[in-house]
Amino acid sequence: MLSKASKVSGVICVLSGGVGAARLLRALSGEVAPSTLTAIVNVGDDLVLHGLTICPDLDTITYTLAGLNNETLGWGLEGETWRVMAELRELGGEAWFGLGDRDLATHLYRSQRLSEGATKAEVTRELCARWGVAVQLLPVSNEPVTTSFTTEIGPLSFQEYFVKHHHGVKVDEIHVSGADASPAPGVLEALRDSSRIVLAPSNPLISLAPLLRVRGVAAAVAQRRDDVIAVSPIVAGAAIKGPADRLLQEFGYDVSCVGVAQYVLDTFGDMVGTWIIDEADAAHVPALEALGVAVRVTTTMMNEPLRAQALAREVLA
Amino acid sequence: MLSKASKVSGVICVLSGGVGAARLLRALSGEVAPSTLTAIVNVGDDLVLHGLTICPDLDTITYTLAGLNNETLGWGLEGETWRVMAELRELGGEAWFGLGDRDLATHLYRSQRLSEGATKAEVTRELCARWGVAVQLLPVSNEPVTTSFTTEIGPLSFQEYFVKHHHGVKVDEIHVSGADASPAPGVLEALRDSSRIVLAPSNPLISLAPLLRVRGVAAAVAQRRDDVIAVSPIVAGAAIKGPADRLLQEFGYDVSCVGVAQYVLDTFGDMVGTWIIDEADAAHVPALEALGVAVRVTTTMMNEPLRAQALAREVLA
Repeated sequence: MLSKASKVSGVICVLSGGVGAARLLRALSGEVAPSTLTAIVNVGDDLVLHGLTICPDLDTITYTLAGLNNETLGWGLEGETWRVMAELRELGGEAWFGLGDRDLATHLYRSQRLSEGATKAEVTRELCARWGVAVQLLPVSNEPVTTSFTTEIGPLSFQEYFVKHHHGVKVDEIHVSGADASPAPGVLEALRDSSRIVLAPSNPLISLAPLLRVRGVAAAVAQRRDDVIAVSPIVAGAAIKGPADRLLQEFGYDVSCVGVAQYVLDTFGDMVGTWIIDEADAAHVPALEALGVAVRVTTTMMNEPLRAQALAREVLA
Repeated sequence: MLSKASKVSGVICVLSGGVGAARLLRALSGEVAPSTLTAIVNVGDDLVLHGLTICPDLDTITYTLAGLNNETLGWGLEGETWRVMAELRELGGEAWFGLGDRDLATHLYRSQRLSEGATKAEVTRELCARWGVAVQLLPVSNEPVTTSFTTEIGPLSFQEYFVKHHHGVKVDEIHVSGADASPAPGVLEALRDSSRIVLAPSNPLISLAPLLRVRGVAAAVAQRRDDVIAVSPIVAGAAIKGPADRLLQEFGYDVSCVGVAQYVLDTFGDMVGTWIIDEADAAHVPALEALGVAVRVTTTMMNEPLRAQALAREVLA
């Protein structure tokens, strides 16, 4: 365990997808002042459904940091009810994307504010203020960035792939439209001025890559290469959650922390200075170091508070 | 009471606003086969709120004919709950327009179908089929027709005036944008081919006028002048519901069935052959007849089933 004194000081910038990032941010919030944390959040799996603009990654992080996340489900809000969804199913509506009654209020709020001219970043700030979330959440862009797939069963939107088909079909191509979007105000500045940039243990192909494709973001990260630390989302040959393992394999990479590092290197160049991998993957240290990066080994599972704390401290070391 | 034999046969076309029209259509459904009734419904108070397309008049009629309307509230669905609204209020969202959890499912369904390219008429047909409503409901147009107001407190949208300010502010001007919209498929044909056209006891200034302003509708009604029968929404100097009385006064008309008839005459010409007025207004018969129209006197209040039935039979006579 590290003492507080050995921690990096200044603003920590975390490139974030959904659940893995949310847990890491929650753990980091226990180690440093939350207001010194900036999360730059993927919007590539945002969707418009039923007329509502839904931002799953932003919401997962906000709910988790507000202590309102549903631990049983692993997504959505605690104490959730499902009246609207049940009625929508009765009407024969699109009911495959679960939207609880509490959760719906978030989407109604956001959709109305967007229609009034507010940006996603402004809405995010309002929701965070309402829920007392002190971590600064920045959507990577206020403009639409949309990840979609060519799969063995045809073209699918992100959530059709992820939720409707339970990421259980083979992906041939990943598309990111709107990748030339402008970064939201503050994103490039946060990357430039932070003392450390962290790649959360989020899916590298479909959460972090769309985020990194936003104009100027990958270059801003690469410029800080020695201060960039990444947490592998693959532990002992499997994704902690979601289809990262399956997708790595489908795109020709080893399903290991080495495969993840190689994917990032091939896709975005030499932007990561240090990889944090799980103890279960200690045998991979030489192969990783051969890629020219520093490696730290710790527990990366965040299913228990003490493990999450250990990972957070390693990230801050 | 009239015998069944004396009723008009063929299709009855009812120009419809919200609650008054819904009650008349329900009463008419008890007297003739519902499938012979066509309601041409105002869309001028439709709104987009929270990203959702809401059609209050269509919904009021559909819910009422499905037997699902909330008699206690006078609007919305029976057995309604309010979880989403309560949460939205917590978030500081726009909560002045009450949307119950069951009701929201309708708006989610409609908004999604519209985003997929369906028309309002198609969505209406789908919802009616789902709820077993046999009356043919036709939105007067599939295109946006938007009623708004210049008031003593500034410009207001329809629902800001009607719901947020409880129609309690002085209106200086009524605007209908999109009034050159195309009528929905079937609207002009229904007006041409029906055996009788009924103007429901809806607000003449803000429910029927926006409907009649859609391209070709007023002319199609006027062509059938002798088969057009209108029910006065003003009884004994007051509106049965809503601001018709107040608006008539603000626009310089008598608050009476005579004022209503005069307003229609001034605005749309000689399109009504017969006015049905309440027994309470029998003294107005000479003044109405002086406008060149036939008059029938009956009960026009529909707060009891037998009264509604009597009115329906008069409409069909």
